[in-house]
Amino acid sequence: MSFKEQVMAAFQAAQEQICQALEQADGVARFSREPWTHQGGGGGITRVIESGHVFEKGGVNFSAVEGELPTFLKSKVSEKATRFFASGVSIVIHPFNPWVPIIHMNVRYFQTDAGDEWFGGGIDLTPIYVQPLEAGEFHRKLQATCNAVSPDFYSKFKTWADEYFFLEHRNETRGVGGVFYDYLKPDDQHSAQQLLQFAISLCNTFTEVYVPLVEKHKNAMFSELNKEWQYIRRGRYVEFNLVYDRGTRFGLETKGRIESILMSLPTYAAWKYNYRPEEGSPEAETLAQLKKGIDWIAYV
Amino acid sequence: MSFKEQVMAAFQAAQEQICQALEQADGVARFSREPWTHQGGGGGITRVIESGHVFEKGGVNFSAVEGELPTFLKSKVSEKATRFFASGVSIVIHPFNPWVPIIHMNVRYFQTDAGDEWFGGGIDLTPIYVQPLEAGEFHRKLQATCNAVSPDFYSKFKTWADEYFFLEHRNETRGVGGVFYDYLKPDDQHSAQQLLQFAISLCNTFTEVYVPLVEKHKNAMFSELNKEWQYIRRGRYVEFNLVYDRGTRFGLETKGRIESILMSLPTYAAWKYNYRPEEGSPEAETLAQLKKGIDWIAYV
Repeated sequence: MSFKEQVMAAFQAAQEQICQALEQADGVARFSREPWTHQGGGGGITRVIESGHVFEKGGVNFSAVEGELPTFLKSKVSEKATRFFASGVSIVIHPFNPWVPIIHMNVRYFQTDAGDEWFGGGIDLTPIYVQPLEAGEFHRKLQATCNAVSPDFYSKFKTWADEYFFLEHRNETRGVGGVFYDYLKPDDQHSAQQLLQFAISLCNTFTEVYVPLVEKHKNAMFSELNKEWQYIRRGRYVEFNLVYDRGTRFGLETKGRIESILMSLPTYAAWKYNYRPEEGSPEAETLAQLKKGIDWIAYV
Repeated sequence: MSFKEQVMAAFQAAQEQICQALEQADGVARFSREPWTHQGGGGGITRVIESGHVFEKGGVNFSAVEGELPTFLKSKVSEKATRFFASGVSIVIHPFNPWVPIIHMNVRYFQTDAGDEWFGGGIDLTPIYVQPLEAGEFHRKLQATCNAVSPDFYSKFKTWADEYFFLEHRNETRGVGGVFYDYLKPDDQHSAQQLLQFAISLCNTFTEVYVPLVEKHKNAMFSELNKEWQYIRRGRYVEFNLVYDRGTRFGLETKGRIESILMSLPTYAAWKYNYRPEEGSPEAETLAQLKKGIDWIAYV
């Protein structure tokens, strides 16, 4: 099995396991399963859960596509490169209950016909109401996963997530961050195999961090205001994905399957003009915590 | 009064008149009024109507800002240009009733410190359910406004609107189009004064085309499906504005007032995975009509 094939097999297996774990957490709804092909070559399997007991909408997408190298990537690869291969798993989950956070995960492998190759990915958590202790727990688990591979990874990738999951035009982070990395190439310290292993560990960590959060909050009571605030925070999520997100941009520019690319958008989102939470309210507290550089690990 | 001052005065007056006409059409709600300043210089007045009898959310924004020339405009202006001045009126109206179309209008004037100057703008209509006869009437009124200035304008600007208000990734137009123009510079045929007059005529046409549509449909009965379809079409509106719209992009890149830039987004929008209207349904009929190159004028 070539390395490319190993990556695809591992990513597909991760997709299956994650869908099973989420179906179990939902208790009612099942993921649909839609295989598709890409115009440049390859394809993927999109799995979506909708109108569940817990999940209003969630997508777990596997893709392995190839095609002509898009212009915006030319500065990142060897001059001779003309075609790319990219495989990945992408997840965004929008729960119904505003006390259950939105979560996103992505792991991906990228290769060109000139021998360039790298891994990228990350996990980040977007609570509608930030709970510092839970954010701490989430970050500690990510830290442990990173530390198993390299002592440098967590602090580097945590900072990178703060920078990446940031709405410049709002001066807000998307949530409490997590880890993010890109252009991570095999080198003396880490073989391609080890980097693949790291990606798979992140997939396992996804289930470990998210399922307990779902279980804890899925039946929590909520008010109309809680729901309204959730819609507004989801509006920010839409802004991030359509304005900044690299995966979305890559998908749009390489003419990917649009329903798979935009499955990350929530069923319902809202925008209210000049919405400002009441001073001292839980909504205002959350806003105050959507900042870069918070050391969540310290919240024990 | 310098030309710049004339433009600003005319645009501000247009903002006032349009807000009055829309308040009258709503019958209940009033526009808020928020003056703001821009970090580079100048500012504007944002007027927003929310939770009205007819209008769920609508914004009529006037701005007159200056600042450093943003990078993406450098190819459009003289080499010596370093600063810009831009003034405009922007409108997006999201009615509550799905039988009342969404409408957008923008007129703008742009100047650099090296003497470059041009006008841009347009009006386009986004019905939730396309009514060909109404689209015909809308286009005939725009054609008359264009013909008063130049026999070439309508066909050129109608085609431009088809190209511009197009969601490439969906292969759908945003609605039934209208007119769109940009980089329209004074020349032998049209003085700057005449182009300003054209912009003002468009502002008058806005009220003439939209108020009758509002009156006709504002109390129409609608079903849950009609409302759901409205949310989905609004989702497309959000996609257009965040992915493609030049005004939004210009606002984000020049660090404009974010609430004024994004007032164009609807209160509520929806995304359902792989949503396909039933064959032969009014929703499917509308989808089939969201195409470039339809000669709406012919629907009499």
